Amino acid sequence: MPVLGHTQYGKAEVRVVRIFRETDPHEIVDHNVSVALSGDFADTHLTGDNSKVLTTDAIKNTVNAFAKEAGDAVRTPELFGLALARHFTEVDQVSRVRVQVETYPWRRLEHAGVPHPHAFARDGGHVRTTTVTRSSAGQEWVVSGVRGLVVLKTTDSEFHTFYADRYTTLAPTTDRVMATEVTSQWWHATPPADFDAAHCAVVGAIASAFAGHHSLALQQTLYAMGTEVLAAEPGIGEIRFSLPNKHHFLLDLEPFGLKNPGEVFHADDRPYGLIEGTVRRDDEPDPGPAFDPGQGW
Amino acid sequence: MPVLGHTQYGKAEVRVVRIFRETDPHEIVDHNVSVALSGDFADTHLTGDNSKVLTTDAIKNTVNAFAKEAGDAVRTPELFGLALARHFTEVDQVSRVRVQVETYPWRRLEHAGVPHPHAFARDGGHVRTTTVTRSSAGQEWVVSGVRGLVVLKTTDSEFHTFYADRYTTLAPTTDRVMATEVTSQWWHATPPADFDAAHCAVVGAIASAFAGHHSLALQQTLYAMGTEVLAAEPGIGEIRFSLPNKHHFLLDLEPFGLKNPGEVFHADDRPYGLIEGTVRRDDEPDPGPAFDPGQGW
Amino acid sequence: MPVLGHTQYGKAEVRVVRIFRETDPHEIVDHNVSVALSGDFADTHLTGDNSKVLTTDAIKNTVNAFAKEAGDAVRTPELFGLALARHFTEVDQVSRVRVQVETYPWRRLEHAGVPHPHAFARDGGHVRTTTVTRSSAGQEWVVSGVRGLVVLKTTDSEFHTFYADRYTTLAPTTDRVMATEVTSQWWHATPPADFDAAHCAVVGAIASAFAGHHSLALQQTLYAMGTEVLAAEPGIGEIRFSLPNKHHFLLDLEPFGLKNPGEVFHADDRPYGLIEGTVRRDDEPDPGPAFDPGQGW
Amino acid sequence: MPVLGHTQYGKAEVRVVRIFRETDPHEIVDHNVSVALSGDFADTHLTGDNSKVLTTDAIKNTVNAFAKEAGDAVRTPELFGLALARHFTEVDQVSRVRVQVETYPWRRLEHAGVPHPHAFARDGGHVRTTTVTRSSAGQEWVVSGVRGLVVLKTTDSEFHTFYADRYTTLAPTTDRVMATEVTSQWWHATPPADFDAAHCAVVGAIASAFAGHHSLALQQTLYAMGTEVLAAEPGIGEIRFSLPNKHHFLLDLEPFGLKNPGEVFHADDRPYGLIEGTVRRDDEPDPGPAFDPGQGW
Repeated sequence: MPVLGHTQYGKAEVRVVRIFRETDPHEIVDHNVSVALSGDFADTHLTGDNSKVLTTDAIKNTVNAFAKEAGDAVRTPELFGLALARHFTEVDQVSRVRVQVETYPWRRLEHAGVPHPHAFARDGGHVRTTTVTRSSAGQEWVVSGVRGLVVLKTTDSEFHTFYADRYTTLAPTTDRVMATEVTSQWWHATPPADFDAAHCAVVGAIASAFAGHHSLALQQTLYAMGTEVLAAEPGIGEIRFSLPNKHHFLLDLEPFGLKNPGEVFHADDRPYGLIEGTVRRDDEPDPGPAFDPGQGW
Repeated sequence: MPVLGHTQYGKAEVRVVRIFRETDPHEIVDHNVSVALSGDFADTHLTGDNSKVLTTDAIKNTVNAFAKEAGDAVRTPELFGLALARHFTEVDQVSRVRVQVETYPWRRLEHAGVPHPHAFARDGGHVRTTTVTRSSAGQEWVVSGVRGLVVLKTTDSEFHTFYADRYTTLAPTTDRVMATEVTSQWWHATPPADFDAAHCAVVGAIASAFAGHHSLALQQTLYAMGTEVLAAEPGIGEIRFSLPNKHHFLLDLEPFGLKNPGEVFHADDRPYGLIEGTVRRDDEPDPGPAFDPGQGW
Repeated sequence: MPVLGHTQYGKAEVRVVRIFRETDPHEIVDHNVSVALSGDFADTHLTGDNSKVLTTDAIKNTVNAFAKEAGDAVRTPELFGLALARHFTEVDQVSRVRVQVETYPWRRLEHAGVPHPHAFARDGGHVRTTTVTRSSAGQEWVVSGVRGLVVLKTTDSEFHTFYADRYTTLAPTTDRVMATEVTSQWWHATPPADFDAAHCAVVGAIASAFAGHHSLALQQTLYAMGTEVLAAEPGIGEIRFSLPNKHHFLLDLEPFGLKNPGEVFHADDRPYGLIEGTVRRDDEPDPGPAFDPGQGW
Repeated sequence: MPVLGHTQYGKAEVRVVRIFRETDPHEIVDHNVSVALSGDFADTHLTGDNSKVLTTDAIKNTVNAFAKEAGDAVRTPELFGLALARHFTEVDQVSRVRVQVETYPWRRLEHAGVPHPHAFARDGGHVRTTTVTRSSAGQEWVVSGVRGLVVLKTTDSEFHTFYADRYTTLAPTTDRVMATEVTSQWWHATPPADFDAAHCAVVGAIASAFAGHHSLALQQTLYAMGTEVLAAEPGIGEIRFSLPNKHHFLLDLEPFGLKNPGEVFHADDRPYGLIEGTVRRDDEPDPGPAFDPGQGW
């Protein structure tokens, strides 16, 4: 007999922009917010009885209203997510809420040689991500992250002495270009005093480890980045990485009478290696649902 | 102290096309294959010792070679995934493999009024998805699915009598346009005799339930689709849906002196409701890792 | 001294869906409409005097209102574009208008074995495109088109005996896979009696020529498709094609002890050949601005 | 009778990365190059005679080889484009070549507080674009540009006193958020001594004008940006802009008892206004084919 299993629902991709105009210079906050609720919602599935369904339209309205009501919390996605999560778990029929925020960074434009007080350019370097999970019992899990951080090193990367089966034709190398687009999420076992400062510190640690590490495999670089993050931020209990190996293939220019000593590469699209891994603190508890997929599983 | 947690790695998005030329008419199979391996791979992370690492390049080669070696299995993504999964779990250091396949359908072009024996057009209607998970102990989980199936009904959809809080402003409706882009995955507790026929039956059941169901909420439609699938295919133990509510807002044409009795709509992009849920058979065991995220978690 | 050159402005991507509910079965029309106006608009650029600027918001409203007001014309994008173009050129300060429409096809879902009267699935095969240009003097140019039509033939394609310079390393072939994604636009020197029938006929002619033509180069296939279209529709004065050569590279499986007689291919993403060309009737006048780029140049 | 009209062909999106390793620190150049040739290529269309066709594969090889052969020219896309264009117009049957380059900027990563000598992050702020057109007679047109430059100002933008017809419902405003994603191309009537410095100067002028201009319409801002660019770079003869008006709609928070004095906005996706225009020097000659669409028309 068919039965209903796990469900969740909510509003995805509420694009809310908050301007602080009373400040001088003006400030801007740019979020893309998705909310997923779980709880006592079986009736709407089974019989179409919506009497417990908080509408996704109301969820959208709440996100927009909280961009004003939450005050300064809106500036920091982790705090904004917590404010929203605490609100939604006050709804009786909600047992768990997950708030996901993508935050787009902006930098000030220059005019007449100085930063302009109310003009900005989108900084496309990377997106800051946040996932806040809260149970109606009051447990909270805050995960911060980054996506779209594309990094490349022109040397200090080897890959050889690997396992070979009958399908292995790859030539070993002691010097290659290594590039990846970092997607990473880290769980705050103990929330930091300042989420914004912590975010900068983690992204800085990832970048610094990528740059400074002499790599024998992208897997090793992943672990080096993870350990540097844990060293930099004592409250982080666990960090996860998803690292596509953006292959740069050395081009054979011999047919044209040219030498190519590590200078000209084809940046390929597909397929790509995909290296994923977790680095955690051995004395931290289990992250529970902190990393559970949100909407879109 | 930092320690290494769960890891996996592999090659993503191997775009392999297989032509059957010895047949008349010719046939074409078009797959996008991703493979993720888990197992005894800590050394590469911790020390850069790659001696157990099957290269992602070899994984790519294997997918390509199996497009020939696997014979007719390549025609059916579930069978192709199983062949690859069985191969990779034979590698000593691999404890678990996940093979994900996206399969793109093609239809024959017409020439002089009849189907042409070797010319095709890509059928963009939807993509067939497959996830095969296999442990080195020989357990296998096969999940089939669909994504990109956009469906819409012009009536037979209500949404009212919902819970209201102070942020609720949505007007109830007894007649609306309902549209969604179906992403769904279903686990074969017992594999069917014919995966291709089963796929057609499931997609047909989803479409038929969407069309025939008088909906009081997209959540209810989800459950109706799930039960119809379970009724149609006795071997399926569980089915999951992710259904964005692609909002079609009735436009107010009064300012222009026009009535709009459910005729002209704005198809909005963002935000969107997102309804997700599971329908399972109450007498089936737990799906284990069948639905675990693959690469890209 | 700086001076203002050519300008145009308008609203892009108005996503309007029109349901015909009084019919049985229901019908659906799904358009994405962009409008660009040229004319006496220098003041807004030079001084910010907007007194002649029809707002882009009003342009959007007009598109939406015409989805009702234009009656059955909304069903056929060429007629809908003409209705809009005629309206906008009635505005005194407008000297030229260009209306671009993308039309998304839908097919009926089946329920209980028969087509359902009000449930549909998006047909992702290709998008129908339309560009209508009209001058305030009453001249009209109607261009119809298609994009996203992906076609492939498994044989009947050669490429050899080509020019070779010192950078030429390609091996000639007498049998290859040929695939492309057809973008095409054709100008109706004389409008057909039935634009919908004409569209079907042209897409059918393109597909039939692609299938039936023994190709010595994608360039030759382009010309074959163009001549077949002109033969099929006597009112078409000129047709243009943009044909990316979606390369399918035969994989070398020799290292794995496998033969690969034209069976297993890698479908590559980038780079791609791009073949573009025009076929026109020698007795037709110049198409004038019919093919000028619209918004987004 | 059908005849062949204008044609062009080439290789699109050759993704070539050039590392300068002999320098300390290392340097990286990242281009996406497309080449389109026109000339005496009718035979391949009409009869499949390819004897004059330089293969697109050879075009790709040439781009890759020139990343080495062209020496320092590869660092500057305008010079790289010129080198390639001069090469291809040496081929007898080529009458015109167009080289388009997208260049992706990278910045150095920091390690231990200082810029790292061989580790980089992709700077996602905007893409630098270049189009070089050359005839076999030796005429050259160089166009530089930018795309993906997203800018926003939180105030100093009005829009009112506009033309109103019966479809006009927009409320006038004396203070709004103005945002756009700048796509711009400018023609060097006289090439600058340093294309890289000129590019920085132009992007700086665009940003500065956007920031400093009190706007009565996005059209006026367009002209202000154009005049500032012409003032900054005397060799530029003409500049063109395509400016989507990325609407930020003030949200009505009254239903929730909240005031919203220009603070909380919905960033909408579609539809969008699209403002396009040209600013040129009145004493410059016609740009000829400089701005003609390249591949993909």
